[in-house]
Amino acid sequence: MFTGLSAFPLTPLRDGKVDENAFVGLIENLVSAEVDSIGALGSTGSYAYLNREERRLAAQLAVGAAGDVPVIVGIGAVATRDVLLLAEDAQAAGASALLLAPVSYQALRADEVFELYETVAHRVSLPLVVYDNPGTTHFQFTDELHGRIAALPNIASIKIPAVPADPAQASARVTSLRAVIPSHVSIGVSGDAAAGNGLNAGCELWYSVMGGLFPRTARALVKASRSGQAERGLEESARLEPLWALFREYGSLRVIATAAEILGHAATNCLPLPLKGLDGPSTQRVAQVVQTLQLA
Amino acid sequence: MFTGLSAFPLTPLRDGKVDENAFVGLIENLVSAEVDSIGALGSTGSYAYLNREERRLAAQLAVGAAGDVPVIVGIGAVATRDVLLLAEDAQAAGASALLLAPVSYQALRADEVFELYETVAHRVSLPLVVYDNPGTTHFQFTDELHGRIAALPNIASIKIPAVPADPAQASARVTSLRAVIPSHVSIGVSGDAAAGNGLNAGCELWYSVMGGLFPRTARALVKASRSGQAERGLEESARLEPLWALFREYGSLRVIATAAEILGHAATNCLPLPLKGLDGPSTQRVAQVVQTLQLA
Repeated sequence: MFTGLSAFPLTPLRDGKVDENAFVGLIENLVSAEVDSIGALGSTGSYAYLNREERRLAAQLAVGAAGDVPVIVGIGAVATRDVLLLAEDAQAAGASALLLAPVSYQALRADEVFELYETVAHRVSLPLVVYDNPGTTHFQFTDELHGRIAALPNIASIKIPAVPADPAQASARVTSLRAVIPSHVSIGVSGDAAAGNGLNAGCELWYSVMGGLFPRTARALVKASRSGQAERGLEESARLEPLWALFREYGSLRVIATAAEILGHAATNCLPLPLKGLDGPSTQRVAQVVQTLQLA
Repeated sequence: MFTGLSAFPLTPLRDGKVDENAFVGLIENLVSAEVDSIGALGSTGSYAYLNREERRLAAQLAVGAAGDVPVIVGIGAVATRDVLLLAEDAQAAGASALLLAPVSYQALRADEVFELYETVAHRVSLPLVVYDNPGTTHFQFTDELHGRIAALPNIASIKIPAVPADPAQASARVTSLRAVIPSHVSIGVSGDAAAGNGLNAGCELWYSVMGGLFPRTARALVKASRSGQAERGLEESARLEPLWALFREYGSLRVIATAAEILGHAATNCLPLPLKGLDGPSTQRVAQVVQTLQLA
């Protein structure tokens, strides 16, 4: 489950409610593209904006539509109490693994984050993915803290933020983290523009935003990088630069939601307010990039 | 309601549930100290960690215990849908005003934040306080955006973060904001260490963390600053420097929660996990500061 491509689909809304048909359609697209795992209710799946009932529904729909493809379900919340309830729900829905970020309102201290993972790790029976995403949580993990958490039971993987653009620095980053965590804990890269570099640097998998909508393109990048053809992975990543540029400008979630709307995979206004898709001119840019890069 | 001292109490927990007796006790302490308003379910009131039922309960308890003192209730949440439900609940509970921060998971764009306030402002009948707190929301308001929001119906006040330590810069900050908002919209300072400076610079009120537990000390500072004795306000603030130092080191919420526990105003572990009070040695430092500064 923790190698190759882990694809994170949107949880599209229609009139403010989970669009069950659209969501199942996205999952089926991932299954037919033979992704290695599906990350339901990740940041791209808007987990932080949905209530417990919506998250339970989405987890059930994802597992139901995923067939043999393992589903990793996001259980993050600001309150530990809610994380534990969401973990129960995800386990009951048939998730294969759980994804947990230290979602913050008040800035968290390292011992608080450790205790969060310790509490959850001892209460679940599924593999747990540590979700290191300072862009949304504003919490900065140290390698020392990663090491302490990775030694807990049930920890299976770490989803790290973008590695540096310089290949040598990317390699140093992955090597330094690898040195403090057990070998059974995989390292997965996120920040799509960094995927080729991260895979070349030793990450076992890519936790992918674009892979949730364009899994075949994402698979090609993973395949190139993991077949010893490091240069081909970087070339494919470079080819996708117009998409990464949109991600940088608008945030990957807004771009992917807009692309899903353009392609009819989601209804208009599929993001939970206050988040919004892009305006007319920006939507045209997304459409053009989707066409030029032959993503659809 | 939007002048003087607005005191923000904890919402203390006991065994993970709202400690109704302790919370009412804190409110009664504020009433007897004759604060100008009470800010229930602010950041210090852990609003972001409590569910809808807990927040409804806390709003009802606060209004019930506050007598004639107006209660401002925090309605922030990441999803606009939830903000609107919380606004309804707070209005039904008898709140006198509503406090709304642009709580973020994905970084918000200015137009998304404007639309959030626009939506809420048109749906409520109570005065609305714009809660500008980049430390927790990671959203940076521009003065231009403040001006657009302040022109919406029902906007009554802006709760700004700490003003600069330099008095001239603090004055420039408040003057520049004042220039773009209508005169009926008050400006309140937060960041307790900046209160004296903010009041001297023209802020009409102090949205106060320490005032939620130590209202008499906070009132003395406000009184000094607002009676034309600017120097006395700054002297009082300087006297409290050991408390501000603890706030800087541990976050004001953890310090105030620990102080409340020490003084018997809250049970131990009164914060919602993953947040924790301080450890033994740090607790002793808090106890010493409370005693030395004669806060209790």
